Amino acid sequence: MTTVGILGGGQLARMLALSGAPLGLRFLVMDTVADACAGQFAPMIVGDWRDERALSEFASKIDVATFDFENVPAESAQWLAERVPVFPSPRALAVAQDRLAEKTLFRELGIPVPPFSAIDSREGLDAALATIGTPCILKTRRLGYDGKGQFRLKSLADADAAWDALGGQARTVGLILEGFVAFDKEVSVVGVRGRDGEFRAWPLTQNWHVDGVLSASLAPAPVSQELEDKAIAHARALADALDYVGVFALELFCRDGELLANELAPRVHNSGHWTIEGSETSQFQNHLRAVLGLPLGATRMVGEACMLNWIGTMPDPNAVLAEPGGHWHDYGKEARAGRKVGHATLRANTPQELAQTLARVGKKLGRESQVEPVIAALR
Amino acid sequence: MTTVGILGGGQLARMLALSGAPLGLRFLVMDTVADACAGQFAPMIVGDWRDERALSEFASKIDVATFDFENVPAESAQWLAERVPVFPSPRALAVAQDRLAEKTLFRELGIPVPPFSAIDSREGLDAALATIGTPCILKTRRLGYDGKGQFRLKSLADADAAWDALGGQARTVGLILEGFVAFDKEVSVVGVRGRDGEFRAWPLTQNWHVDGVLSASLAPAPVSQELEDKAIAHARALADALDYVGVFALELFCRDGELLANELAPRVHNSGHWTIEGSETSQFQNHLRAVLGLPLGATRMVGEACMLNWIGTMPDPNAVLAEPGGHWHDYGKEARAGRKVGHATLRANTPQELAQTLARVGKKLGRESQVEPVIAALR
Ligand SMILES: Nc1ncnc2c1ncn2[C@@H]1O[C@H](COP(=O)(O)OP(=O)(O)OP(=O)(O)O)[C@@H](O)[C@H]1O
Ligand SMILES: Nc1ncnc2c1ncn2[C@@H]1O[C@H](COP(=O)(O)OP(=O)(O)OP(=O)(O)O)[C@@H](O)[C@H]1O
Ligand SMILES: [Mg+2]
Ligand SMILES: [Mg+2]
Repeated sequence: MTTVGILGGGQLARMLALSGAPLGLRFLVMDTVADACAGQFAPMIVGDWRDERALSEFASKIDVATFDFENVPAESAQWLAERVPVFPSPRALAVAQDRLAEKTLFRELGIPVPPFSAIDSREGLDAALATIGTPCILKTRRLGYDGKGQFRLKSLADADAAWDALGGQARTVGLILEGFVAFDKEVSVVGVRGRDGEFRAWPLTQNWHVDGVLSASLAPAPVSQELEDKAIAHARALADALDYVGVFALELFCRDGELLANELAPRVHNSGHWTIEGSETSQFQNHLRAVLGLPLGATRMVGEACMLNWIGTMPDPNAVLAEPGGHWHDYGKEARAGRKVGHATLRANTPQELAQTLARVGKKLGRESQVEPVIAALR
Repeated sequence: MTTVGILGGGQLARMLALSGAPLGLRFLVMDTVADACAGQFAPMIVGDWRDERALSEFASKIDVATFDFENVPAESAQWLAERVPVFPSPRALAVAQDRLAEKTLFRELGIPVPPFSAIDSREGLDAALATIGTPCILKTRRLGYDGKGQFRLKSLADADAAWDALGGQARTVGLILEGFVAFDKEVSVVGVRGRDGEFRAWPLTQNWHVDGVLSASLAPAPVSQELEDKAIAHARALADALDYVGVFALELFCRDGELLANELAPRVHNSGHWTIEGSETSQFQNHLRAVLGLPLGATRMVGEACMLNWIGTMPDPNAVLAEPGGHWHDYGKEARAGRKVGHATLRANTPQELAQTLARVGKKLGRESQVEPVIAALR
């Protein structure tokens, strides 16, 4: 009997547990709050990441540890790794936790990136603005998610406002200034690397964000084979460089047929949720297979898939459930503004069928604006 | 928040909970033993089916009840139905619990059945043998499963042995004598009927039994459209007659292009396990959708699927996990002779591909005899 410990008990941990149950696995989740939604389907330890007693209990009950949440303090991950196998490694986690470290690594590996610069002070911001120019984005180096901890600068006149918003975090989580990319498309590679170094990627996914939060994903992304191959090669180079084990996502911007890397998510990723129904093996099960040293599952698609995120509150499920390829995912969370509470995956046999399904669902839910860009991409 | 109560905590309850989680449901399982495998992923109440305190607690915590185990005493189901909605209804359950009642209903509905006769005494057995002839099978009317409670009679000379084996149960669970059907094939219709009477069926499944226990299932069954339509029409007539709500399986024998009904399983069924990966909506999720009055999901296939049952002990998972369409299901049970401990589903895009996969898996696991009949049917 193998017990997998998951640090973080959100929807990712929940879907990991649900997809790992058929492998005969047991799970133990650790989270800082008692109502974390993975706790509905797996036993849970509640404690602060730095609470050594809670971490000790967690470590004593598991065979291997992994993450639902990448911002577990590096020291806690390290402490754990001295006691049980931890995948991905604390080192890979540390790189992905820091936008400066990850962008530096991208550049070293020959993966193109937007111009960026670490910012330590108000003067540093001015200096970086002089080189990078506007528009650009000031971001916290650590602990950002769902577009939080970001300030967009349209012109130099926004520098004061940007510093007012984020300057206080320069000495805590650190800051980075990035050139704003006027992208045509955003895509992600969801990939998996085994303990033995075997690498697989799902077909490229196109993503749409609203207010910095993922709104919709489409797979396969309607891009050239060449572009897809290049994106996947970047992901593979990155995974190899980090000796990465498990599933990860590499987010990229596409501009005029060029790729620019945005960030690495060292875990199963929202842009890979469609793999549950849309591919032979879900990202969740493949993550567990990788972490446990089992053979990786096929990442081939089963039809065409679109994922729609539900933010804040769950819409009426019936519109989705009534569709032949409609799959519903309610994370069992309480409604709260800005919170990811669920998603739907629509699966179809052709792009045309998928576009029609999206149109019907968008209309029934009054969410035309969410589905419209995906329908346009399918044309 | 809706909590579904499940009577019985075996692998069916476990797979119901796993497939219902994405609907935002909570589950509460009741079982007579504390180590029932559904308890690994859902809260559980342990108690005897006739323990009114346990049943009360169960009833007080759920919104609707359903079954993993159809042999819950009819009175317990009735007691519960007076407190919470129960699907399928205790009446449908009562019919399916009794081989005499179900075969009588089949006949009333014009669904052909092998000759059968209720047996109350040793003399009754002789009289029935005179009419039905041999070969035939003496079965307990109630509480049989996986071929248990059955005695096969090759000739009249076996009558004493049959009575010695089962006669003692004539006054408790009752007995029935059935003509033995020299079938070419066994098939099952896995169907689902909603609260509003909507009916759907998955493509017909062909089944192979070894020692009375399901060994392999193949979908779609390689039969004529006409035969499939007839089988599904029988299933629909039956579900309508019982005002059935939820998933059920109708097991049928095929002989020279004719169908003869064997039995009705008033629950998700082992011959429908392939629907998890092999169809748009699994039997488990559709059962819950039906029970909750949600729209039923599409039952269309996604490729070709074969399910292999693991009885007694789990074989090495790697042979299956290494296959592109290989899916593993370990129920988290302890090994025990004759026990259903898991299954694998192999999914492929063509019958040829499926046959090749089966050949590889059969060879790697040294289970050629389990896969051989399926490969032959795919030719
Ligand atoms: N340099 C940039 N140029 C253009 N758009 C950007 C840039 N950086 C971020 N964005 C936009 O904001 C979104 C969120 O940014 P980013 O991925 O850096 O943040 P995050 O907080 O990690 O978000 P998530 O958790 O959703 O991945 C991006 O997907 C993109 O739409
Ligand atoms: N009348 C019959 N003629 C020929 N074979 C039969 C007959 N009855 C049963 N069998 C064989 O025995 C198997 C099990 O019988 P049956 O379905 O009645 O029992 P069960 O205990 O309910 O099994 P399960 O739980 O697997 O459905 C059948 O699938 C079939 O292979
Ligand atoms: Mg991002
Ligand atoms: Mg049977």
